[in-house]
Amino acid sequence: MVYPTPVFVVGTYDREGKPNVMTASWGGICCSQPPCVMVSLREATCAFKNIVAHSAFTISIPSEEFLKQTDYFGMVSSRESDKLLTTRLTPVRSDLVDAPYVSEFPLVLECKLAHKFKIGLHTQFVGEIMDVKAEENVLGTAGLVDIKKVRPFVFAPDTQCYYSIGSFIGRAFSVGSVY
Amino acid sequence: MVYPTPVFVVGTYDREGKPNVMTASWGGICCSQPPCVMVSLREATCAFKNIVAHSAFTISIPSEEFLKQTDYFGMVSSRESDKLLTTRLTPVRSDLVDAPYVSEFPLVLECKLAHKFKIGLHTQFVGEIMDVKAEENVLGTAGLVDIKKVRPFVFAPDTQCYYSIGSFIGRAFSVGSVY
Repeated sequence: MVYPTPVFVVGTYDREGKPNVMTASWGGICCSQPPCVMVSLREATCAFKNIVAHSAFTISIPSEEFLKQTDYFGMVSSRESDKLLTTRLTPVRSDLVDAPYVSEFPLVLECKLAHKFKIGLHTQFVGEIMDVKAEENVLGTAGLVDIKKVRPFVFAPDTQCYYSIGSFIGRAFSVGSVY
Repeated sequence: MVYPTPVFVVGTYDREGKPNVMTASWGGICCSQPPCVMVSLREATCAFKNIVAHSAFTISIPSEEFLKQTDYFGMVSSRESDKLLTTRLTPVRSDLVDAPYVSEFPLVLECKLAHKFKIGLHTQFVGEIMDVKAEENVLGTAGLVDIKKVRPFVFAPDTQCYYSIGSFIGRAFSVGSVY
């Protein structure tokens, strides 16, 4: 499997309007204009049914300090546990789409369902990103999101381990200009 | 934009069978069964036309030592430069799909085109992963790929910087069991 995969927490509402969170690593940006992100889910998950019902989802990007909560969100089903209540994290209703996000996480993408593609065991949900909400303390110079302040982490599928983001190694569209 | 995005080098053949490489960060795993990876490309790229023509592509995962070459692959078009010749890297024909990969890179996914979805400016190419080739020296215990040996890197879109993979912070489906 490919390295590294992101760690997304997908936020949705069930049919009764109860917030649901689940961790997913099969996903990524899939378009610049309009800005879109995709996440792949199995049909057996609650999140799958919730996105279909509400045509919306959020992706909250956890920082390292929420590693345990994030792992827990991927370990159990909402059928077994109220995951937000158990971990004492706070769902907040998006003001743009019909889905909740995790208030404590530093970066949130609010998505309107744009496409749904069945691939195999997993179905891709492509969401148009209506807004990106970033906590003020993760912004760096020029108002840009500073990855070292967000402190997201990645997942290594083969060994099933989480890793932090390491050091800055170079500027894109720049280090290659030696050729 | 979402953090962090992967750094993929997409390998294709043009109509004359000449190998092409380009760097892409809009992509990720999108299905477990069958195992599939997606990469999103603009129609203006050579890689787009090549995948359509050959129904195949590879994704080579560069290690940190190939940062400059990888950045270069994303800076210029194959119309302007023979990128492999310039960087002195070696294209190798896949024995499974009609596409080349970069011999020097430690990890390669060989993909047969399964789906093509137009999203907007970018079109998603979903490839069924026919094989994963890993150099022996990136394998750890139990024959699994060790991310610290691969030394891939990630891209932070907002600030357009590359970062290494940091330290191990926890085991998945395990650290969350405190709840």
